[in-house]
Amino acid sequence: MELRQLDNGFELIQNELVVLVHSYDNPAFFVGIGNEKIEIYRGNFSIEDAVQERIPLRHSRIEDDAVYLSYDHNTPVLLCLHFEKLTERDAKLTIDSQHSQLNRFWVRVNAKENDKVWGCGEQMSYFNLRGRHFPLWTSEPGVGRDKTTEITFLSDKYNKAGGDYYHTNYPQPTFISSQHYACHVNSTAYSDFDFRHSNYHELHTWEIPESIEFYTDTTFLNIVEKLSLRFGRQPKLPEWIYNGVILGLKGGEENSFSRMENAVNRGVKVAGLWSEDWAGIRQTSFGKRLFWDWKWSTKRYPNLDRKIRELKQKNIRFLAYISPYLCEDGELYPIAKELGLFALNKKGEVALVDFGEFNCGVLDFTNEKTRSWVKSEIIQKNMLDLGISGWMADFGEYLPTEDLYLHNGVDAKLMHNAWPSLWASVNAEAVAERGLTGEIMFFMRSGFSGSQKYCPMLWAGDQCVDFSRHDGLNTVICGALSSGLLGNAYHHSDIGGYTSLFGNRRTKEVFERWVDMAAFTPMMRTHEGNRPDENFQFDQDVNTIEHLARMTRIYCHLTPYLKSLVDEAGMKGYPVQRPLFVHFEHDFNTYDIQDQYMYGNDLLVAPVHKKDVTEWTVYLPAGETWVHLWNAQEIQGGQSITVPAPIGKTPVFYRRNSQWRGLFEEIKNIS
Amino acid sequence: MELRQLDNGFELIQNELVVLVHSYDNPAFFVGIGNEKIEIYRGNFSIEDAVQERIPLRHSRIEDDAVYLSYDHNTPVLLCLHFEKLTERDAKLTIDSQHSQLNRFWVRVNAKENDKVWGCGEQMSYFNLRGRHFPLWTSEPGVGRDKTTEITFLSDKYNKAGGDYYHTNYPQPTFISSQHYACHVNSTAYSDFDFRHSNYHELHTWEIPESIEFYTDTTFLNIVEKLSLRFGRQPKLPEWIYNGVILGLKGGEENSFSRMENAVNRGVKVAGLWSEDWAGIRQTSFGKRLFWDWKWSTKRYPNLDRKIRELKQKNIRFLAYISPYLCEDGELYPIAKELGLFALNKKGEVALVDFGEFNCGVLDFTNEKTRSWVKSEIIQKNMLDLGISGWMADFGEYLPTEDLYLHNGVDAKLMHNAWPSLWASVNAEAVAERGLTGEIMFFMRSGFSGSQKYCPMLWAGDQCVDFSRHDGLNTVICGALSSGLLGNAYHHSDIGGYTSLFGNRRTKEVFERWVDMAAFTPMMRTHEGNRPDENFQFDQDVNTIEHLARMTRIYCHLTPYLKSLVDEAGMKGYPVQRPLFVHFEHDFNTYDIQDQYMYGNDLLVAPVHKKDVTEWTVYLPAGETWVHLWNAQEIQGGQSITVPAPIGKTPVFYRRNSQWRGLFEEIKNIS
Repeated sequence: MELRQLDNGFELIQNELVVLVHSYDNPAFFVGIGNEKIEIYRGNFSIEDAVQERIPLRHSRIEDDAVYLSYDHNTPVLLCLHFEKLTERDAKLTIDSQHSQLNRFWVRVNAKENDKVWGCGEQMSYFNLRGRHFPLWTSEPGVGRDKTTEITFLSDKYNKAGGDYYHTNYPQPTFISSQHYACHVNSTAYSDFDFRHSNYHELHTWEIPESIEFYTDTTFLNIVEKLSLRFGRQPKLPEWIYNGVILGLKGGEENSFSRMENAVNRGVKVAGLWSEDWAGIRQTSFGKRLFWDWKWSTKRYPNLDRKIRELKQKNIRFLAYISPYLCEDGELYPIAKELGLFALNKKGEVALVDFGEFNCGVLDFTNEKTRSWVKSEIIQKNMLDLGISGWMADFGEYLPTEDLYLHNGVDAKLMHNAWPSLWASVNAEAVAERGLTGEIMFFMRSGFSGSQKYCPMLWAGDQCVDFSRHDGLNTVICGALSSGLLGNAYHHSDIGGYTSLFGNRRTKEVFERWVDMAAFTPMMRTHEGNRPDENFQFDQDVNTIEHLARMTRIYCHLTPYLKSLVDEAGMKGYPVQRPLFVHFEHDFNTYDIQDQYMYGNDLLVAPVHKKDVTEWTVYLPAGETWVHLWNAQEIQGGQSITVPAPIGKTPVFYRRNSQWRGLFEEIKNIS
Repeated sequence: MELRQLDNGFELIQNELVVLVHSYDNPAFFVGIGNEKIEIYRGNFSIEDAVQERIPLRHSRIEDDAVYLSYDHNTPVLLCLHFEKLTERDAKLTIDSQHSQLNRFWVRVNAKENDKVWGCGEQMSYFNLRGRHFPLWTSEPGVGRDKTTEITFLSDKYNKAGGDYYHTNYPQPTFISSQHYACHVNSTAYSDFDFRHSNYHELHTWEIPESIEFYTDTTFLNIVEKLSLRFGRQPKLPEWIYNGVILGLKGGEENSFSRMENAVNRGVKVAGLWSEDWAGIRQTSFGKRLFWDWKWSTKRYPNLDRKIRELKQKNIRFLAYISPYLCEDGELYPIAKELGLFALNKKGEVALVDFGEFNCGVLDFTNEKTRSWVKSEIIQKNMLDLGISGWMADFGEYLPTEDLYLHNGVDAKLMHNAWPSLWASVNAEAVAERGLTGEIMFFMRSGFSGSQKYCPMLWAGDQCVDFSRHDGLNTVICGALSSGLLGNAYHHSDIGGYTSLFGNRRTKEVFERWVDMAAFTPMMRTHEGNRPDENFQFDQDVNTIEHLARMTRIYCHLTPYLKSLVDEAGMKGYPVQRPLFVHFEHDFNTYDIQDQYMYGNDLLVAPVHKKDVTEWTVYLPAGETWVHLWNAQEIQGGQSITVPAPIGKTPVFYRRNSQWRGLFEEIKNIS
C-alpha cells in the first residue's frame, strides 16, 4: 500500500484499490468538539451528542511519510498523519493532534455504490451493514430490539431496555468491505460507523484515535486470516467439549445433578453440567438472579467438591459462573473494599452499580492488584482448585461513565469499551498461570477489539425465547458470522434463548429448533432462561429429551470434522461458522445471506428460524454440487431450493466431493 | 439596543441586558453544510440531518454597523451581519452570506441558568421550553404524542403518526425569555431551537436566515404587545359568535339540522351550525372523511341555500369546511388542473399528496392565478354567496418537500413552513375583498410566523378524546398560552377532543369537562370526532345537553367582559387567554404554570383535566385577593388551595376588586 500525493490532496492506494482519498474540495478528515450526555440504566445507555464544531481539514501538506492537515493553507495544522507500511499490502496511519480540546474525529474511507460491508463486532440484526449506521458501544443488546414490537415497547417503557438493531454486547470498530479491504480504528472511545453513503463510509470516534489500519488482500479468507493474527487467535477447544452438550441447570445441587443424571440415563451425551447458581441465588422481579459473591455456596451445593470429582470420573465437567463485579451484601465485597480493589466515585467511596435490585462494586482491572487478587482468590482458588472446568464470564458492558474513577487515571468514557477485553484478559491469565489454557473453557458475551486474544469462546448473549426477527434464534447466526470475520473462531448460544418477559414464553418448538442448530456449532449448551418455571425445559417431555439425545449424538459424530476446523482456526484463524461468501466470492447472491452459514468449508447449514414450518428454502452457492444431509439428494448450486424441514432435520448440505463425505453420509442413519 | 465592540468580539446589549455575546473563544455564530433526509407520510415527517461541516466563526471585525465573521483572521469572511435599530429598545441583525453552499446556521443567544423560555408557536406539551429542544416544522401533531403510551406506540407502528412533544401544526421560530427579551428568526426553513444549555440558547436553521430580531421591554405584556404588532393583529370577533355554541354536526342535512333544532329547543344557546360535510363525504379506515371538492353537496344538503337563510333569521349562522387541496375524484380538480393551479412534480404533472386513502392536488398559493381562483371560485362564489358565515380552514402542514415544484421557484423545503400563513392569507383576502372581515369567522390549526395577521382564530388541532398528558384536554391550555404570547389573541378547541383510535373513546365526563373549559374561552364549538358513532355526543343524554345549555348561558353572560378583552386585543394585542405570569411578574411561582390561565386580566381559570376528580388544586398568584366564582369565598393569593370541582363548576376565580365583579357574581346563580 502506498501514500500517493495528488494535485490537491492525497490517497492511500493498493494497486487499483483506493482505500482513502482526500482533497481540498472533498476532504476525508474532519475534527471537532462535542459534548456528550451518557445515561446508564442497568446496562442500557441513553447517549446524545451536541457537536459544537465539525471542521473540514481541507488543506493537506505531505512531507516524507507524514501528512499535515489544516482547515486552510494559512491556518494551524490540526492533525498529523504518519503513514507506515505494515506489509506490502497493509498500512497504518498513526494520528497526532496538538489540540487537546478536539474530541471528535470523522474520517471517510472509500466506498462504491454497490459495496457490501461486514463486521463491527458481533452484530445481531444486520450482517451486511450497508445502508445503516452502527453506534459502537458495549451494552445490553436490548429486549426485542425492534421498536415496532410490543415486547420492545414494554421493555423500553418499564426497563429502558428495548434496544435497537445496533445494540450489542460486543461492538468493534473494524469492518471488511467487499472491495477486499479491512479497516480498523484504534480507539476505545464511543464510535459510530456510518455506511449510509454511496461513495464513502464515515467513521466517527469520540476522541482523536491513535491510528487507523488498512488490510487488503486478494481473497476474503486471506483478510480474515490477517485480522485474526492482528487481534489474536483462540486456543484449541478442550477435548472434553466434544463429549456432548453442556446442560445448564441451576436448581441447586440435588435438582441440578439429578436432572443431569436423568438426561445421561436417557441417552443424552453430556460434556458438562453448568450450574450458574454455584455461588447462590437471589430473587428479583426479573426472575431468579445469581448471588454475585464468587465462591462455592455450600448451602446451595453442599457436596460440590465431591460431586465435581465424581463427575470427572464419568468424563463430565462442571461449569460455573462469574461476573466482574461483587455484590455489596456478599462476603468478598468487604475484603475487596478493604484492599482497595474497586473503582471509586468522586467522594473516594466504592462506585456502586445497580444491576437490577442489587448493587455491586466494579472490580478495577486497570489496577494490577485487583487483577492479581481476582485471578488468585476468585478464579484460581475458588474455582480451578474446586475442579471447575469452565464458566460463563458474564457481563463487562456496564462500566458507568459518570462519577467513576479508575486506577489508571483514564476517563471511564474511554475505558467503557475496553472493559470486555480487560475482563477477558483476567480470565485468560488466571487460566494460563495454571497452565490450563485449552483445557478450561470460559465463554463471554461482551467483547471489543482484543477480546479475540483472550476469550476462547463467544456466546451470543440473551436472545428472546422465540423466533423474532431482531432478538430470536436467527440473530445468533448473524452474530456468529459478523464476529467470526473479525477473528472470533468459536461462537455458540443459549439453546432455547434466555429472555422471557411480558408474556413471551419458550415453546417446545423453539427449544427443539435451537437444538437442531446447536448440533452444528462448536459447542452445545442449554439454558433454563431467566424464568425457568414458566418456560419449556429440555427434560419436560420425553420426545424432547430423546430429540436432544439424538442431536448430541450427531454433534459427537461430527467430532473429527469439528477438530479439523479447530486445527484450521489455530493455523489460519478461520471461524468455524462462516458466511457463505468467503468460500464463494464469485457468487454475489451469497453476500447478503445471514441466516445460513458454512460450518467449515464443507457443510452448509440453514437453520429453521420460523414457527410452524414444514419446509424451508435454502440458497445453495454456485459452482458446487451439494448433497442433502438427510436424504442424499444431489443438487446443483446457484439456486434456491425448498426442502422438507421437520424438527430434527434442519436443512444441511455438504459438498459432493468433500473428503468428509463418508462421515457426513452416516449422519442420516443416527437415530 | 446597541452593538458594542469588545476586545475579542462584540455584544448586543440593552441597558444591563445582554442578548447576544460573541468572542473568539466563545463564538455565537456557526455555519455549515448539511444533507437532510425528509420523508412524509400523511402529514407525519421523518427528518434526519447529516451535518458535514459546522464551522465556528471565531473571528469578528466590526465596521460601522456591520460585523464580518470568519473562521479566523486570515480566512475569508463567511457571514456579514448588519445591525439596525428598530426602536430604542429593539434591533435587527440582517445576515448576508456570500457562500451559497452554506445551508446550516447556528446562533447562540444569551441565557442564564434559571431563565424560562416560552413561545415557539403553539406548543401543546410544554409551555416553559427550557430543558428541551424544539424542532420547528409544521406537521400533524401526532396521536398520543408520548412514546411511553400504547396509543402512540400503535399510531407509530401502523400510521407513523404517534408524534412527540414538539410536534405541532403551528411552529414559529420566535420565543420570549424571562430576561425580558424576545427573539425572532426570519426564516421559513426547518429549524430547531435548543433550550437545553445553561448559558445560551442555540437556534439552528437549515438556511442562512434573512435576519434575527430582538425585542426588549420592561414588562412581558409590553413585549407581547410588540410581537403582536410585529406579526399583525386579528380583527374583532363577529357579533354572532357571542350568541352561544357552534354545534359541529355532520350527518347530512336532515340529521344535522334536526339535532341542532333539538339542542335549541332544549335551551342550548346556539351561535352556529358547523357542518363539515357540506361538500360531501367518503368512508376510509380512519372513519368518515370529507369529500375534498369545495362546493355545496346538493346530495347531502339538498336545501342548504334555503336552510342557511332560515337559520340566519333565527340569528344562527352556518359554518362549513375547506382545505387547501382538491381531491382527484372531485369536480373542481379537472378545472384547476386545466388552469394550471396545482404544484407540479418533476415530470410536469400535478404533484399528488396522499391524505389517507385518497389523493389530492396541492393548490399552489405562490401562483397569483391560483390565489385569485380559490378566492373567487371557492371561497366567494361557493361559500360566501351561499351565505356561509365561517369555516374550518383545515390543514396547511402537508406540503411535500420532494418532487414538488412551485410557481415561485423556491425550494419546497423552504416553502413548507410558509404554507400555513399563505393558506391563511388566501382565506383572509377572500373575506376582505367582500368587506366581510370581522363578520366572517374562519379558524385554523396550522400556523407559522405571519399567520397572526391573516388568521382570525386558532383552533388547537386534533386532541385525543381523553385526559392524557400529551394529547388530552390540558394540552389545549398550553397551546393557547404559547401561541397567545406571540400575538394570537383568539384560541379555542374541539369540545370533547377529536381523535378516537385504538379503542380510545370519548366519555361523557371528558365531554363535559371540555364544555366547562370552553365556556371560558372566546369561542365554544363542539366536534363529533373522527368516529362519531363510537364516541359520546352532546345530545346523547339529557343531563349532558342540559349541562351544555347552562354553560352556553354562562358563556353568553360573559359577553360584555369578553368584548372588553376583544377591544384590548385590538388595541394592545393581548391574548384573551394569558399565562398567569404576564399579570404577576413578581410571583415566580406562576412562571411554569400551564394548566391554568388568566381569562383576561380579571378571571383565573383552572380547568379540571383528570378523570374521577371531585376537588382540584389551584395556584392563586400573590398580591391579590381572589373570589371563588361558585361560592364567593375570598382567598388571599400566593398559595395553592384545593376546592370542590364538580362538573359544571370548573375552578374559576376573579379579582376581588374587579370592575366586572357584579357580572361575575351573577354567574353562580345561572342554572
